[in-house]
Amino acid sequence: MPLESLDPSTPYLVVDADVLDRNLRRAATTARTRGLVLRPHAKTHKCLEIARRQIALGAGGLTVATVGEAEVFAAAGFGDLFIAYPVWVSGGRVARLRALAEQVSLRIGVDSVEGVQALASAASGAGIAVLVEVDSGHHRSGVQPEAAGEVAAAASRAGLEVLGVFTFPGHGYQPDGRGQAAADEATALDVGARSLQRVSVDPVVRSGGSTPTAALADAASLTEMRPGVYAFNDAQQAELGSCGWSDVALTAAATVVSRSGQQVVVDAGSKVLGADRPTWTTGGGRLLDHPDARIVALSEHHGTVVFPEGSALPALGEVVRVVPNHVCSAVNLADQLVVVSAGRQVEHWAVAARGANT
Amino acid sequence: MPLESLDPSTPYLVVDADVLDRNLRRAATTARTRGLVLRPHAKTHKCLEIARRQIALGAGGLTVATVGEAEVFAAAGFGDLFIAYPVWVSGGRVARLRALAEQVSLRIGVDSVEGVQALASAASGAGIAVLVEVDSGHHRSGVQPEAAGEVAAAASRAGLEVLGVFTFPGHGYQPDGRGQAAADEATALDVGARSLQRVSVDPVVRSGGSTPTAALADAASLTEMRPGVYAFNDAQQAELGSCGWSDVALTAAATVVSRSGQQVVVDAGSKVLGADRPTWTTGGGRLLDHPDARIVALSEHHGTVVFPEGSALPALGEVVRVVPNHVCSAVNLADQLVVVSAGRQVEHWAVAARGANT
Repeated sequence: MPLESLDPSTPYLVVDADVLDRNLRRAATTARTRGLVLRPHAKTHKCLEIARRQIALGAGGLTVATVGEAEVFAAAGFGDLFIAYPVWVSGGRVARLRALAEQVSLRIGVDSVEGVQALASAASGAGIAVLVEVDSGHHRSGVQPEAAGEVAAAASRAGLEVLGVFTFPGHGYQPDGRGQAAADEATALDVGARSLQRVSVDPVVRSGGSTPTAALADAASLTEMRPGVYAFNDAQQAELGSCGWSDVALTAAATVVSRSGQQVVVDAGSKVLGADRPTWTTGGGRLLDHPDARIVALSEHHGTVVFPEGSALPALGEVVRVVPNHVCSAVNLADQLVVVSAGRQVEHWAVAARGANT
Repeated sequence: MPLESLDPSTPYLVVDADVLDRNLRRAATTARTRGLVLRPHAKTHKCLEIARRQIALGAGGLTVATVGEAEVFAAAGFGDLFIAYPVWVSGGRVARLRALAEQVSLRIGVDSVEGVQALASAASGAGIAVLVEVDSGHHRSGVQPEAAGEVAAAASRAGLEVLGVFTFPGHGYQPDGRGQAAADEATALDVGARSLQRVSVDPVVRSGGSTPTAALADAASLTEMRPGVYAFNDAQQAELGSCGWSDVALTAAATVVSRSGQQVVVDAGSKVLGADRPTWTTGGGRLLDHPDARIVALSEHHGTVVFPEGSALPALGEVVRVVPNHVCSAVNLADQLVVVSAGRQVEHWAVAARGANT
């Protein structure tokens, strides 16, 4: 792919539309085969074009992380949105949520009785359904699964529709962590669902899923999965083994600007790739065409890449393809994505929900 | 400061204009007292309003990291810009650099003979001056100081004006690393300057400086310093000891959305704060009003904060002030900054050069 000819100045993000489409189709098929609803997390791509393709392939709505993201996708005509987050409903968010609920079928997360009360007092009768978040081992937000019924009962008493339970098994982002995380997810959703049943709430939706655990999602326990990264994949996923390098659909085109010994510096740094670097990764991302190279450091505008002794280095001025560690962060730094198909640039997609964090 | 009343929905970035102004004045005074030119790095704030204040306080021009940042500040009327980066001049960047050089007094970095040749062949006669980047120990870009003359001689032969040498002592971002980094910086600039003199180039400019080393900058070796972060400061600087917590001028206003035991989750995560987390930091940022709390994890929209046993936690729905680890990353994620003075919201500043990475 002659990246040099695409856009005038590096660094920029490039989507391989062919790989993307294969990724979208594979997940759609997996979900359909297992009888699971696929509700892709749109925080990864933030692009209307990709969300439309996901829906066309059978997705049962979109997942988003914030009210702001929901507003972007609602304005573009997406009609079924789940804000998978314990939204604190107060201040200006009240009117925004009520306006959203008039436009679309809206569900949001709750993980406390206080959160339920804030929502109920602000948006009672607005038609916002809730799912109770349970902690499946990531220990971030979410109640303990056996306490889900307490939150659900408060919601029911307050007149809110409770659809079920959801969780994010984020502890699957560890080497060899995927299997245990998928098992924990199933258990947490089972326990959470039973906890809802004990307070006479039917857990119609049992929503889980993350890209590392999606292939292992247990259809006996889940009704829905919400992977996001699978659309593009990234260096984390490849290093975790949840995708291959040929499944990576997004890279940063970066120019080699400096060279010394076995080291080069490229012009994609943390302001293009994001600074995500879990301790188990091999570095600050990877070079797609140089599997033995390692990104040993990222500054804002410098990616420092070390090559093994004896291996050939890219030349000064050469454009290389850098795979971000965490594609959600990289996309959120860009205003647009350059789209290629069969090696040719075909269009640009706006990152429509970039920075929609509120 | 009643943050709740400022903007409708968290998370958002808040600048305390009084602290900012004190930081800007202090650095201006330090530079003037020592006879150093202060050329602040605008990549930190990316705001026209702050750059204007820096110039009004005596800054001798601005530093930027990219051609794109230079374009934003040139369009706003700033007339003296240094792109402190080994810019690779090819493709669309040629016309952009030539256009810039017609508007402003422009200097850029070079760190290779090849880079000099690319610049000379593309923009000869455009009036772009160069400084040779030398490596003072950060081992990123920059030639070894004793080799600076080779690059300078190539530039002179190609008809480019060579103004001197510059370095970034980034290895000062380590506990107890500031003193050694400042000493290394002085040595590297001395050696680099002598290397230029040996090829009959006068090293008029010897430019160094970073926020951690600025207070130790050696006026016998430097003529100019380029700190950026000092305008706002951040958790890294405070934990390194290069500022106090009362010198932190920028925080993220974030709402507590989840609580469990001694842990809360706030709605500012890595998409607001940036994911920068050097191993020597205590976490993913700090809470300004809760010095004993630690941000143990950052997801995209979750900051997980642990409080010591027995200490009081903020309530669900409470707004707290989060200090990013690396303020440059946080600012680059935001479209605007909320500005407060004496505890009252006074205006918004656009992050004019947000995402100007090319």
